[in-house]
Amino acid sequence: MIEAQRAQSAFAGWADASPSDRARALRALSDRLEDNREDLIVVASEETGLTTSRLTAELTRTIVQIRFFSDEVMSGRHYGAQIDEQDDNFILGIRPNLRRYLVPVGPVLNFAAGNFPFAFSVCGGDTVSALAAGCPVVVKAHSGHPRLADMTARIASEALEANGAPAHTLQVIHGQENGLRLLEAPEIRVATFTGSTDVGRMLAHRAASREKPIPFFGELGSVNPVFVTDGAIRENADVIISGLVASISGSAGQLCTKPGYIFVPEGYDVEEMLIRALSATEEHRLLTQGMSRSYQEAHDHQLRALPDEPIDVGSLTLDGGGFAWVRPTVARCSAEFLCSQPELVEEVFGPFAVLVSYSPNTDLVSVADTLFDGVLTATIHAQPDEDIADLVSWATHHAGRVLFGGWPTGVAVTHAQQHGGPWPATTLDMSTSVGVAALSRFLRGVAFQDVPERFLPPPLQDANPWGVPQNVSPAGESSTWGTAVPLGA
Amino acid sequence: MIEAQRAQSAFAGWADASPSDRARALRALSDRLEDNREDLIVVASEETGLTTSRLTAELTRTIVQIRFFSDEVMSGRHYGAQIDEQDDNFILGIRPNLRRYLVPVGPVLNFAAGNFPFAFSVCGGDTVSALAAGCPVVVKAHSGHPRLADMTARIASEALEANGAPAHTLQVIHGQENGLRLLEAPEIRVATFTGSTDVGRMLAHRAASREKPIPFFGELGSVNPVFVTDGAIRENADVIISGLVASISGSAGQLCTKPGYIFVPEGYDVEEMLIRALSATEEHRLLTQGMSRSYQEAHDHQLRALPDEPIDVGSLTLDGGGFAWVRPTVARCSAEFLCSQPELVEEVFGPFAVLVSYSPNTDLVSVADTLFDGVLTATIHAQPDEDIADLVSWATHHAGRVLFGGWPTGVAVTHAQQHGGPWPATTLDMSTSVGVAALSRFLRGVAFQDVPERFLPPPLQDANPWGVPQNVSPAGESSTWGTAVPLGA
Repeated sequence: MIEAQRAQSAFAGWADASPSDRARALRALSDRLEDNREDLIVVASEETGLTTSRLTAELTRTIVQIRFFSDEVMSGRHYGAQIDEQDDNFILGIRPNLRRYLVPVGPVLNFAAGNFPFAFSVCGGDTVSALAAGCPVVVKAHSGHPRLADMTARIASEALEANGAPAHTLQVIHGQENGLRLLEAPEIRVATFTGSTDVGRMLAHRAASREKPIPFFGELGSVNPVFVTDGAIRENADVIISGLVASISGSAGQLCTKPGYIFVPEGYDVEEMLIRALSATEEHRLLTQGMSRSYQEAHDHQLRALPDEPIDVGSLTLDGGGFAWVRPTVARCSAEFLCSQPELVEEVFGPFAVLVSYSPNTDLVSVADTLFDGVLTATIHAQPDEDIADLVSWATHHAGRVLFGGWPTGVAVTHAQQHGGPWPATTLDMSTSVGVAALSRFLRGVAFQDVPERFLPPPLQDANPWGVPQNVSPAGESSTWGTAVPLGA
Repeated sequence: MIEAQRAQSAFAGWADASPSDRARALRALSDRLEDNREDLIVVASEETGLTTSRLTAELTRTIVQIRFFSDEVMSGRHYGAQIDEQDDNFILGIRPNLRRYLVPVGPVLNFAAGNFPFAFSVCGGDTVSALAAGCPVVVKAHSGHPRLADMTARIASEALEANGAPAHTLQVIHGQENGLRLLEAPEIRVATFTGSTDVGRMLAHRAASREKPIPFFGELGSVNPVFVTDGAIRENADVIISGLVASISGSAGQLCTKPGYIFVPEGYDVEEMLIRALSATEEHRLLTQGMSRSYQEAHDHQLRALPDEPIDVGSLTLDGGGFAWVRPTVARCSAEFLCSQPELVEEVFGPFAVLVSYSPNTDLVSVADTLFDGVLTATIHAQPDEDIADLVSWATHHAGRVLFGGWPTGVAVTHAQQHGGPWPATTLDMSTSVGVAALSRFLRGVAFQDVPERFLPPPLQDANPWGVPQNVSPAGESSTWGTAVPLGA
């Protein structure tokens, strides 16, 4: 496809750009988005039904994220430059002069998400981390906001190209068929995706079945369990309930980190509190007609399947355009029941959650093991003196992010963020799509053996013209290998 | 399968071991291999037909590699600990206290290689880097050295378990069927492989088609082109020819980094030099009957397909056991011819290489583009004042390791090594199977948000009991994001 060829033609120039050139282009991109803030938000609001305040915050986050990656590019850390000096007394003979750094892999195809028209779309985290790594990007726009996608792409392309990026460093295409065809293009070297588990599985399989297979980084679904201990509910019931309602109703629950199952000890009557908090939520349109249908089906299926009376069934009406207008629904069941039918556990994409009551002698770790595979987040509300070490350990082995208190919605853009967890949360769970490590999805190592300075890439030259961090292993070090831990008697 | 369950049962204990405990167990493993050196080499020699000197060097390399990883574990660098301090004036509101580190993913299935009975087998690089990362390993033994595999496993298990590792931290299974079945086991979280492109592709596809897909890190084939310039052949013909013959004949050419296509400018008569050097090589048995058949087929196919008279056709005879005994064959053709039939380019696993002559006005980059996909290595022999920048750039984008002079066989075990290149050299080309970065194939990130010190894993605690490197992002930093590169006027 022509877009793949164009991306390939942009690759060498963008890949070889100096950190300051690449960072400057990214910075300009963030500035142009800021300049066009009002127009962007008007179109986003029309297309997605998300509130202006939410979209304003999301665009700010998107702009900040670009600047964060711009600085990261400037730091030069992403080159991972490692220099092993030649060692004529190497323990295995002669060690050559070996220098390794990370290079961009090539053109990236990014399937944009529908629920974040800025932060996970044309100029969102996947795109920007790939650009920061030095890869041209083709975005397959989400059908939920096509006009916004084109508008963003136009602004972005102008900003990038006016600041030295090659033509076609960023492109947008529309349509599922085109996306699938581009996924087959030999020039495409990595694909990223944010969306449902079913679509993610299908795309991952296609990526793996290409004549030249490529990595597919998909952020898929997650049910995000929340475990509330006895101590927490006794001390903080009101804060927990209001936080829960805010977390499941914000953006109409259309967030991959929305808490799906909230475990609360039985015997505490939180029903009234919950109903009151839910009554204060406003009706919200869902993002697309397709998501509206899916939500209605999953919502009704859950209500039929769960034997207990729901705590509150929110409104759910279709407008003339086929969009659902919704208020949150909170269903309920016992941990015992859910463990008897673990196949009921599913992500319901929208403002729906299940309150799961558990009896005093319940082993929450065993319940969690029965019910959940990998998840993006696991949250524990407990008092600091309660013994939750086993639950933290379970969460560490099953989640990408473990929270103590608070709510998983709202993914901070920062160094230590991890947005990605074991399958089915993420297809390649060594990856994250938010935070500094998002860059590494688009890099691969290349080693240079005995290559003269003039043919070395700048990050590996002794002269180090870009001033990047270089880690040097001196000659002679191998003689001490293995002595760091003396074996005891 | 029982092995998968056993590996899973060993996981928590091995994953949570302190760096010094894990490093000590690895160090003990290396010591026990050293203690059993003679017995191991006797069995290896009987089973593989490799020379004692080669096996001795390989076992030393394997032992050193374990000590190298033992030290790397002790350094604590692999945790990648990153701490973002809480920031109440974060540019996007409040930044929680976020701490991220890397955890082992779970049990690993490693398909051992046949051509390195020590260095890429039961206690080879894949196994040891996975163990270093904190993952239990099940090795599917290569059918070429089953007794050695069992012997090594016995020594290794005793060493590990006597030094605190849980039972079944390292296991060995035999048989293709068992390997394929284990690849389907839900407990297995990553698979590694060193072998042919065809088998690698099949296994990668199975890993991607599981109900819970897993990453598959395969080191597959490579044709390892070598480009010799006019200046190099004029100045160094004798050194180059003798180096070439040593590189293709060592270990009977059964190395994934064996140079396959050597480009030499026409008009230099290297034939006589080559024949003389080849005549000094000794007959060598190939590793297995299967490899013997494959070599014979590929060898004869190439000789039939290449129109030019070969430079030297080495001996190739089958013994009564079905093993081929061989001496190197060097075929030849012109770059023009090969570019007219690029489908002829293939890895011939054994002591076979093609000398490709090119005319003075040949664009080697265009030839390379026509003939080669991803390769493990690309080598350039040139004089320092020759203009080979474009060729270095081509190599950087197509190879895992770029050599200036020297030969790609012999992969140094060190920090900056990269053993892995774009498809079809490697299935997931962001990875390496040699060097420090090999560890990262078995790690994934987990972030902890607002988790109290007592529930944090040691590498993320403020108290830092293991003394690992912690990278800290202070509060207040976000106010300067994006200012590292001021936009010019």
